[in-house]
Amino acid sequence: MLKKIDHIGIAAADTEAVKQMMQEIFGLSPSFEEEVLDQHVRAVGFRLGDSNLEFLEPTSPESPIAKYMEKKGGGMHHMAVQVDDIRAVIKKLKNAGLSMIDDEPRPGAEGKLIAFVHPRSFFGILLELSQTA
Amino acid sequence: MLKKIDHIGIAAADTEAVKQMMQEIFGLSPSFEEEVLDQHVRAVGFRLGDSNLEFLEPTSPESPIAKYMEKKGGGMHHMAVQVDDIRAVIKKLKNAGLSMIDDEPRPGAEGKLIAFVHPRSFFGILLELSQTA
Repeated sequence: MLKKIDHIGIAAADTEAVKQMMQEIFGLSPSFEEEVLDQHVRAVGFRLGDSNLEFLEPTSPESPIAKYMEKKGGGMHHMAVQVDDIRAVIKKLKNAGLSMIDDEPRPGAEGKLIAFVHPRSFFGILLELSQTA
Repeated sequence: MLKKIDHIGIAAADTEAVKQMMQEIFGLSPSFEEEVLDQHVRAVGFRLGDSNLEFLEPTSPESPIAKYMEKKGGGMHHMAVQVDDIRAVIKKLKNAGLSMIDDEPRPGAEGKLIAFVHPRSFFGILLELSQTA
């Protein structure tokens, strides 16, 4: 049901500084860059094995990432796990009594379908289900 | 230099409850279970793609995980990244001005060599370098 860690979402104040450091120190170039308008973030991803580190810089104070940074200062924001059939997984989790933030899948970065599980239902982790389109 | 996400370390109050939920809801059995004495934790890992989710339950109030849970309640505690030559990576990061918690590698779970980078040097993330023995 859960295939792999798709990415770790990381709250970052300045993705340009992230790109510079990841290049200079770790020799890593971005695997993708994208502005996710409905989340008010600039996303920069770096491939690591079969996962990505996805740095998220808020582009407006309404961004959920801006609010997270205000409270926590930065760091790991969510964990995304790849699933084959997101609708089937949502149904299964709801039947098991887990709290979904998204009852229906919605469009995420890179053309994926995503849905968030509430942290109170997954060990304090904001869990993103992610289905490659 | 960074090969893959080795594991995500997750603070958990009760690894027995984690095992039950991971089995019943996600159909996942533990890939390893271990008591890490010098960290005062019980560790239970679940394979996910080429990474692991590693749940860490404090076995004493002195455990760094117990302190983390007191402050944050749970959730993602650290990210471990696999490297080929941990001593070379530590040297490189120190030369670049990053703050290491461990200047020298030390033994971790599963016979690995590990060293932690301070969160202030890696985007607010407690980063574990991990070399398979």
